[in-house]
Amino acid sequence: MHATTSTTGRLLYAQSGGVTAVINATAAAVIEACRKHKVPAYAARNGILGALREDLIDTAKESPAAIAALKHTPGGAFGSCRVKLKSLEDDRAKYERLIEVFRAHDIRWFLYNGGNDSADTALKLSKLGKAMGYDIRCIGVPKTVDNDLAVTDCCPGFGSVAKYTAVSLRECALDVVSMMDTSTKVFVMEVMGRHAGWIAASAGLAGQGPGDAPHLILFPELEFDEEKFLARVRETVDRVGCCVVAASEGIKYADGKFVADAHAGTDAFGHTQLGGVAPALASMVRDKLKLKTHWAMPDYLQRSARHIASKTDLDQALAVGTAAVELALAGENAVMPVIRRTSDSPYRWKIDTARLDRIANHEKKLPRSFISKDGYGITTAARKYLSPLIRGEAPPPYGKDGLPRYVVLKNMTVKQKLAAFAT
Amino acid sequence: MHATTSTTGRLLYAQSGGVTAVINATAAAVIEACRKHKVPAYAARNGILGALREDLIDTAKESPAAIAALKHTPGGAFGSCRVKLKSLEDDRAKYERLIEVFRAHDIRWFLYNGGNDSADTALKLSKLGKAMGYDIRCIGVPKTVDNDLAVTDCCPGFGSVAKYTAVSLRECALDVVSMMDTSTKVFVMEVMGRHAGWIAASAGLAGQGPGDAPHLILFPELEFDEEKFLARVRETVDRVGCCVVAASEGIKYADGKFVADAHAGTDAFGHTQLGGVAPALASMVRDKLKLKTHWAMPDYLQRSARHIASKTDLDQALAVGTAAVELALAGENAVMPVIRRTSDSPYRWKIDTARLDRIANHEKKLPRSFISKDGYGITTAARKYLSPLIRGEAPPPYGKDGLPRYVVLKNMTVKQKLAAFAT
Repeated sequence: MHATTSTTGRLLYAQSGGVTAVINATAAAVIEACRKHKVPAYAARNGILGALREDLIDTAKESPAAIAALKHTPGGAFGSCRVKLKSLEDDRAKYERLIEVFRAHDIRWFLYNGGNDSADTALKLSKLGKAMGYDIRCIGVPKTVDNDLAVTDCCPGFGSVAKYTAVSLRECALDVVSMMDTSTKVFVMEVMGRHAGWIAASAGLAGQGPGDAPHLILFPELEFDEEKFLARVRETVDRVGCCVVAASEGIKYADGKFVADAHAGTDAFGHTQLGGVAPALASMVRDKLKLKTHWAMPDYLQRSARHIASKTDLDQALAVGTAAVELALAGENAVMPVIRRTSDSPYRWKIDTARLDRIANHEKKLPRSFISKDGYGITTAARKYLSPLIRGEAPPPYGKDGLPRYVVLKNMTVKQKLAAFAT
Repeated sequence: MHATTSTTGRLLYAQSGGVTAVINATAAAVIEACRKHKVPAYAARNGILGALREDLIDTAKESPAAIAALKHTPGGAFGSCRVKLKSLEDDRAKYERLIEVFRAHDIRWFLYNGGNDSADTALKLSKLGKAMGYDIRCIGVPKTVDNDLAVTDCCPGFGSVAKYTAVSLRECALDVVSMMDTSTKVFVMEVMGRHAGWIAASAGLAGQGPGDAPHLILFPELEFDEEKFLARVRETVDRVGCCVVAASEGIKYADGKFVADAHAGTDAFGHTQLGGVAPALASMVRDKLKLKTHWAMPDYLQRSARHIASKTDLDQALAVGTAAVELALAGENAVMPVIRRTSDSPYRWKIDTARLDRIANHEKKLPRSFISKDGYGITTAARKYLSPLIRGEAPPPYGKDGLPRYVVLKNMTVKQKLAAFAT
């Protein structure tokens, strides 16, 4: 894609934000590309915090087999973090510290694997490097189960959680249908997606026909209308015998209040931390409709379910890792390798390059055209978009003990050169 | 195992209670064995209810491919139910109706695929058949994710939920460890098992060393001591950096009250219907220890996760189905094919025969020797018992759309011969 320019120095890779089933595959691709180009690669322990603390990991200490095993290991192998740097003005000392750490370890390429906030940090660092006269190339590497990054057609991490969601919902629906005559009539499965209904929409792939589950999907893009929802549940139970609901954690009432309000809190990003839409809806149905309900809240299970990862997603997670190193070594700065779809059928994609200022702090919501007119299902357009992303299986190897052979790295710390820095 | 006696008549197969990832594999084995022996097989729609209502399904209408596909399809293909018949005295009209339906359709073998309650129903029916002079052979076929049946070494259905639990917990733990520096410190995963901690114990297979998750397992066999639990969480977070908890839905305080009390209700079996231990524990930790917590409640996902079924479990589910037909055709009555373990290492098992009166209404709890002294982990004895049950993978076939190819049967109804019966 780009000619490799020869230069010296080290590459620093860091993972940011919520981890995914395939972020380590991106890490593996990054490290393997560095090894191919004979560029020494460090990783920051716990994302940007490791860079601030000068807590760096020497990936050279890991065997090729261990790095290859990252391709089938969920979680974040070097640690991730929920830390958002503020503006250059407000957090100047931190940005300068980062450049200082880069300089101390001859870090010439910084790859930040995350979402919108990480793209913003990488963008700011690239600017500061210029201002401080330190030659650093900052590349964003896309990752988020939320699929809410701008420009890129989809985000590595999303396809696997979409596959987990569609498969789990299809399985649960078979369970509910089996028992609906004398047991559970309404089943609610809560899915992630604070502001964007991409994961909720992927639940829609579980069904094909009009009677198939999920019978109702609740999207954060639309106001939650309790009365209308209950009427639809009632109508579905009368018609089908049961009602399977996929509900986004982020659904809100007309007044802007989260339905899961009772479980609210605040995380380090200042986001409201949710949880509990499913039990809230289940109680509502039980109290108002007097129907037996069950609910599930997979929470972290959905984003760490490497055992049911999408092969398409895995391929894209690997591709952005390789491309990020190539972009960096080619001298690109403040860019991100993104996925461009070139054909729906057959599904084809390639890696493209986008400027970070087009991605940082943007958020891609589910288009209204992906949600059915009545607001409770997905359209043909949504299926056309979503379906390729869950295609293909890429199971991890299993041991004789029946468990996936996930790797834990040695993560050997690089000797510090600077004084401590309070983060 | 038994010589096949030649006789005429039909076999009726019914599914009872909560479905599992592999109960349909047992159904497939039953139907295939019937076809092999040229015995026509009906299935009751929605378990014993279908027999009471004379709502019978002719399995002859299903293709060999559809029956074979049941081996990889979760849920209950003919419908199951939560209906427990009372004593012969209290429910005499129902038992007599069943014999009447059997007589009308020349049902000479009745296979009831379920747990303790179903074994009890099959046993009572076999007695009533004798008393009413109707030649019926009743065979219990073991099935339950709870693994609480007496005599049998393990129950088909359990190995797969155990595998799901161990794999999911291992995956989540990698997620939590990645983020623990700045995000979730305590993660609680709730598992099924109302009175017996078999599924909770299986979570223990996810870890090997002392620092591995799950750091704490909460068993329904032991009193839940809030203060001691919180102290252990605190100590684990201080030592490991996070604390991953696997909690049985059925844990109780010293006074016998369920921890999930707030979510209590009653099902048709008179059991308290639970849900919500995980959020209850998470709130406790957050309020008392001021630590960021997350929790998951897989609910039906765990028992319908055919995509991560255990091969051992699948093999046993098939074996009990085949054996049940052979026992029936050999003229056995009021028995159940059970699994006998003949060796731990290498793991070996065979099918044995147990009298239903040794199984009906018994309940096998987790032995105290399987729980570590401190009450929060599993012992070597537990590992020796559990480990073989999750071995081997048996993924379903996937379509080009990335979803498992689960089958939905035609389930053609047999023409009724009797007047309606109010159930």
